[in-house]
Amino acid sequence: MRKLSLLLFLSIVGIVVFGQKEDSAFIKRISDEILVNGKAYENLRHLTKKIGARLAGSQGMVKSEHWGLKVMQESGADKAYMQECMVPHWVRGGEDRASLKKKPSGAIDWIRKDLDIVALGNSIGSEKNGISGEVIEVKSFDDLEKRKDEVKGKIVFYNYKFNDTYINTFLAYRDASQYRGQGPSRAAKYGAKAVIVRSMSHATDNNPHTGATRYDSNYAKIPAVAIGLRDADWLSTEINAQAETTKPAQLELELFTHGHFLPDTIGHNIIGELKGTQFPAEIITVGGHLDSWDNCEGAHDDGAGCVQTIEILRAFKALGYQPKRTIRFVLFANEENGLRGGNKYADEAKAKGEKHIFALESDAGGFTPRSFGMTGTEEQFQKFLSWKPLIAPYGCTEFNRGGGGADIGPLNRAFKTPTAGLNPDSQRYFDIHHARNDVFEAVNKRELDLGAVNMAALIYLVDKYGM
Amino acid sequence: MRKLSLLLFLSIVGIVVFGQKEDSAFIKRISDEILVNGKAYENLRHLTKKIGARLAGSQGMVKSEHWGLKVMQESGADKAYMQECMVPHWVRGGEDRASLKKKPSGAIDWIRKDLDIVALGNSIGSEKNGISGEVIEVKSFDDLEKRKDEVKGKIVFYNYKFNDTYINTFLAYRDASQYRGQGPSRAAKYGAKAVIVRSMSHATDNNPHTGATRYDSNYAKIPAVAIGLRDADWLSTEINAQAETTKPAQLELELFTHGHFLPDTIGHNIIGELKGTQFPAEIITVGGHLDSWDNCEGAHDDGAGCVQTIEILRAFKALGYQPKRTIRFVLFANEENGLRGGNKYADEAKAKGEKHIFALESDAGGFTPRSFGMTGTEEQFQKFLSWKPLIAPYGCTEFNRGGGGADIGPLNRAFKTPTAGLNPDSQRYFDIHHARNDVFEAVNKRELDLGAVNMAALIYLVDKYGM
Repeated sequence: MRKLSLLLFLSIVGIVVFGQKEDSAFIKRISDEILVNGKAYENLRHLTKKIGARLAGSQGMVKSEHWGLKVMQESGADKAYMQECMVPHWVRGGEDRASLKKKPSGAIDWIRKDLDIVALGNSIGSEKNGISGEVIEVKSFDDLEKRKDEVKGKIVFYNYKFNDTYINTFLAYRDASQYRGQGPSRAAKYGAKAVIVRSMSHATDNNPHTGATRYDSNYAKIPAVAIGLRDADWLSTEINAQAETTKPAQLELELFTHGHFLPDTIGHNIIGELKGTQFPAEIITVGGHLDSWDNCEGAHDDGAGCVQTIEILRAFKALGYQPKRTIRFVLFANEENGLRGGNKYADEAKAKGEKHIFALESDAGGFTPRSFGMTGTEEQFQKFLSWKPLIAPYGCTEFNRGGGGADIGPLNRAFKTPTAGLNPDSQRYFDIHHARNDVFEAVNKRELDLGAVNMAALIYLVDKYGM
Repeated sequence: MRKLSLLLFLSIVGIVVFGQKEDSAFIKRISDEILVNGKAYENLRHLTKKIGARLAGSQGMVKSEHWGLKVMQESGADKAYMQECMVPHWVRGGEDRASLKKKPSGAIDWIRKDLDIVALGNSIGSEKNGISGEVIEVKSFDDLEKRKDEVKGKIVFYNYKFNDTYINTFLAYRDASQYRGQGPSRAAKYGAKAVIVRSMSHATDNNPHTGATRYDSNYAKIPAVAIGLRDADWLSTEINAQAETTKPAQLELELFTHGHFLPDTIGHNIIGELKGTQFPAEIITVGGHLDSWDNCEGAHDDGAGCVQTIEILRAFKALGYQPKRTIRFVLFANEENGLRGGNKYADEAKAKGEKHIFALESDAGGFTPRSFGMTGTEEQFQKFLSWKPLIAPYGCTEFNRGGGGADIGPLNRAFKTPTAGLNPDSQRYFDIHHARNDVFEAVNKRELDLGAVNMAALIYLVDKYGM
């Protein structure tokens, strides 16, 4: 009996060890295929340089959808299709401009300095003649509350600094981005006529960073812009210099923005599929979002996630891998200012009674991979954790609790589908996030490829062992 | 008795836990100081943009030495000084040029295409009128041996590819760089008159990468250059196209280089010191090398290591940290083509009977920190490993066996001093290594700072607990 147990034990160990060896060998093949023959970088070059910006509703969106469908087909999808959804259609509407006008005490003429700004996504434009007014600088919402009686008729400048002391820069972003999201309405509540927000970044340059704002319908919608960090510091210095002199200059900020919404229009999620050979009804989703802000090429956000998604499909086909389960490769629509694509994908899945066992998203930049974060039950997390030794040699040395992505969030909420997100190194991300320098040149081929390698390895393991 | 043991046990645990909390808190202070007030990036800007290239013997070397001494003093060294050593003085001597001349079958005129090349460091120049000859492409040393009878009087083109399948790119470098080091003499052995080496890189651009070659005194010294990757591929295609046609064109490569040695000259290690308060005789060394190749700003190689070294000194002083042991902050001379600085430092230490307990080097780029490698006894390694939980939150999540740096190698050989090296993410390093694009702009402020944070944390722990 003891001998039998020992034999049983040894054969189980044998199977596990053999399985691990087999998995390790296959993951090495995935890695070699992607690092040597990968097409992600050239796909990204096309998406960023030939198509470029692709905000929901724009011509770039339409072009990128057609491109995405074609590349899914060329990469070997059993089936590639567009999933229609209505998307918001915000347009910038013209050139965003701002300048600080200064009339020194006793002077007749104004001195003018242009500031590098960009209107926030979803924000409304100034009147045709612009908005002009005194600027009040606040360091935080607390500061705003203290000075609420001074705000009326002025332009509120939220000079809230990105917190450099976080090692994971996404924590600094989460902390600072509330000023972009809530800042305009919280200032409008006290009668402000426009808002300037310090860009959510710790870059050494002066590029302003856009991103969606959210108006609270209880208050007036007022124009809102982000300002580059060097200009934010300069503006702050100018304002404070006046407070310290006995003969303060007159300072006025002038602002022209033109943002407005056109009627909702038709957009699409782009979906490629590899049909499962054993459990075709069990669906694994991997994706990124195809839309980008209008002021950049959207190379890291999220062209990278899109071409990595396609690369996994290409590599699986190149290796002749036939998945047990159905794998969906999805380029989601409208993550940046509506999330209509992610919502549509979950709604359709619900309507069709689909079984979604896992979803993975890459939407944190195309930098060198460092970790995966996962949202699921304890049991699911332990299974996920058991794969770490197989994937760690390729970059993701940490497997953490909590993760996913905006586009796959609705799937998690609808089905409790476990979700995971690829976490590349975050140090450079907020240098380029939503700014004009989020361009192809900021992406490194090997870092991009390695992200795809780590994602492909995880998808392979989920496909093989379930979740 | 059992109660006493328990008390003893609890108080030991208490001390350890308290110690860890204290260490963790101090490392957080180091991190905040460097991330918020760090000067490494601005120091690097000065070193790269105001001084620039600084190969041993050059004017740049002299300027950077004076700068280094001044910054050590300003950063709060108890003592800052120059340690003299003789350094080799190789000069490029002029503009490196190469072109492929092609005369199609039956044609009268040559067609000429310039190639992007750079002479290898320490290599000799062509004669004044250049070198011209037929090119023979070999894929490896094995290939060379097979075709040794064809080599005489020709220019050998080592088209050995950087192996993309390594995740740690330094392994690909170690593999490929033998062609730069040994290639010229191994070709000269069979009568080659010059050598072209495919650059040791997997970059997507065409910049050629230099680096030292080593002539074997048994064979003739012949000119040797590295060629950019796109031109290497193009050259290979041209050569092979001729082999496949019945009417091959005549192909000749023309090469002009001007490298030569001037007499050895005086260089210096730049040393800043914080004197130990408890064990001043025990010395901890941390450093990078101040010299760089002449064709670039040497921002990552190794300006980064230098400014990180200085930053640790600055941060310790800013925090009022008084080390138990003596810490030496060293900018080494002449790592690139002689290692005279590192050798001098160990020789002096030996002559003075110094006690060197630990040395740390940063010479693998200023990218985001990922791991430390350490060379020492098993006991020393275990101690080192025990500090991983304290440092991992700042980036170095892996502590591996084996590591150090070229400049601190002599210290290890002289005293068996345990050594460690900072290993930043390696994906981008060989895009810029020894090439004209190793410039300030390729360095990210936060990645550079985080390298200094991890190094400072390790030095703090070695100082506190010994090694």
